[in-house]
Amino acid sequence: MAKDDRVFVGVDLGATKIMAAAYDAKMRPISTEKMKTPREANAKKVVGALSEAVRLCLEAAGPGLALGGVGVAVPGPLDRAKGIVRYTPNMGFKDYNLGQELENLFGAPAYLDNDVQAGAYGELRAGVLRGKTNAVAVFLGTGIGGGIVIDGKLFRGSSGSAGEVGHMIIHEGGSLCGCGNYGCLEALASRTAMAKDAVALAASGKAPGMLDAAGTDIRKYRSSAFEASLGAGDKYIKKAVDRAAFWLGVGLANIVHILNPEAIVLGGGVVSRFGEKFRDKAVESMNDHLMPGLAGTAEILLSELGDLAVPTGAAFFAAEGVGA
Amino acid sequence: MAKDDRVFVGVDLGATKIMAAAYDAKMRPISTEKMKTPREANAKKVVGALSEAVRLCLEAAGPGLALGGVGVAVPGPLDRAKGIVRYTPNMGFKDYNLGQELENLFGAPAYLDNDVQAGAYGELRAGVLRGKTNAVAVFLGTGIGGGIVIDGKLFRGSSGSAGEVGHMIIHEGGSLCGCGNYGCLEALASRTAMAKDAVALAASGKAPGMLDAAGTDIRKYRSSAFEASLGAGDKYIKKAVDRAAFWLGVGLANIVHILNPEAIVLGGGVVSRFGEKFRDKAVESMNDHLMPGLAGTAEILLSELGDLAVPTGAAFFAAEGVGA
Repeated sequence: MAKDDRVFVGVDLGATKIMAAAYDAKMRPISTEKMKTPREANAKKVVGALSEAVRLCLEAAGPGLALGGVGVAVPGPLDRAKGIVRYTPNMGFKDYNLGQELENLFGAPAYLDNDVQAGAYGELRAGVLRGKTNAVAVFLGTGIGGGIVIDGKLFRGSSGSAGEVGHMIIHEGGSLCGCGNYGCLEALASRTAMAKDAVALAASGKAPGMLDAAGTDIRKYRSSAFEASLGAGDKYIKKAVDRAAFWLGVGLANIVHILNPEAIVLGGGVVSRFGEKFRDKAVESMNDHLMPGLAGTAEILLSELGDLAVPTGAAFFAAEGVGA
Repeated sequence: MAKDDRVFVGVDLGATKIMAAAYDAKMRPISTEKMKTPREANAKKVVGALSEAVRLCLEAAGPGLALGGVGVAVPGPLDRAKGIVRYTPNMGFKDYNLGQELENLFGAPAYLDNDVQAGAYGELRAGVLRGKTNAVAVFLGTGIGGGIVIDGKLFRGSSGSAGEVGHMIIHEGGSLCGCGNYGCLEALASRTAMAKDAVALAASGKAPGMLDAAGTDIRKYRSSAFEASLGAGDKYIKKAVDRAAFWLGVGLANIVHILNPEAIVLGGGVVSRFGEKFRDKAVESMNDHLMPGLAGTAEILLSELGDLAVPTGAAFFAAEGVGA
């Protein structure tokens, strides 16, 4: 049998960073590449950076390899079948045929998918959900998204929007969400939710560590600023973070009630920064909110792939799309 | 080919009534039988009534038919594989091998299942979910339960408890639920939830129609009493019912966000009594609580099988269990 020299590249095309990873034909990781997304909302520049990341990743993978396919995960709405990005204003995409352009650039098949679905698929194929039949992935960052695994496959629902766990309402009438509703999980447990509380606390003098680390501009309230604030002993910030974990637990309980999964993996920036303590608080709250008999039915796991979950899933989409 | 003279009987064994229905080998309905469940928590008496209902149903089906199998839907926890009812205190079952007893009585295979799962399966095989790939059934009565259809099959989750939509929390810290948590859908949108408001209104003189119809004993607050009260023009009771529909809409929005189903069927006593108006209020609220773009993605249907949904599903379980 001839040696299979194909390589598959998966890319997480985010609004702030581009993360690419190359895999050999057996889907073993070879190389990764990370760069900033151009700040301008200019599709040409974004595609330029994206293809540069793919090229660098291929170069780092070594000579004599043929690109078998590229998978790109995007945060906006898209037409997967046609490879069209519908609308991603902060990157300048509007009905943009990114799939075709990448195929022309690289002479290999290109696949687009939603970033959260790619992340869930990465966890399923190469992360802590490997071998699971019925599971859920929940990603916490500026927003909250999820992917559902049923029968060992990604479950996309009837029109491709299954897994929008961030917009399940757990406290109707509560905090305003970016989606326009009140009391969504995302409005209560995302980093954005924590930042709303934290910036007000810093401005009113209740969180000196946070004020030092990030001032009063909410755009600077990244996970690293929270870590600095907690390290400095800001007890009100600790309350805000614990509260987010409490709400996450309510959301996890709802997922368990509805889907009865064997496992839920938590990923995304918030989780990779806060780790086990945050998970344990969320699990405690989840168990408090489950009906009798359901506590302990789902394992709540931490992602091990971290920010490689999305490029990994995107690469698997590409590899399986071409029958690797 | 020989004529297939087998008949399958499905039974909804409820705490207040027993409903049985017989189907021919092509699963066309032949006869139904309804009787009160013995009031005593005495397993022997309950089994006596249950087998009487099956016999009457068979008799009404006509002569020369052979029982191909019996399916019984029970409201409590059970071991489906072994045919054991774990614990149903108001009927006197405790680790009771009902399956074996029915097989001995009737000389035909018996299948037990959860009542809500049977109802969902009835809707899928012979009701408004027929032919659907990805759908949900929500039953509203004294409690709220649900069944999930994925890939055209009943989805039971990893330990058989998927579909507990009544215990998803939509208003954390809100009304106390029978499960011990606060703000579950069941605590806000079930008939029990409406009755809690209604009985207080009646007692304080704000619902004269309800007071006439049902007094102040909450056990008399059945759907028929609500209908009488609304007919008498009790405007506060109307508010309580409308509020339940509002909360149901929040729950439906959550189901749509998570599962993206093509259809959700509403069934159970509350829905069959209040019908389209209740459904329409719930749909209005659901659309208000969905993120942009998801309104209209799921059809919200009313059950046509009504209280035959459960015996129908139970009969299908029996028929398919024996390979009809």
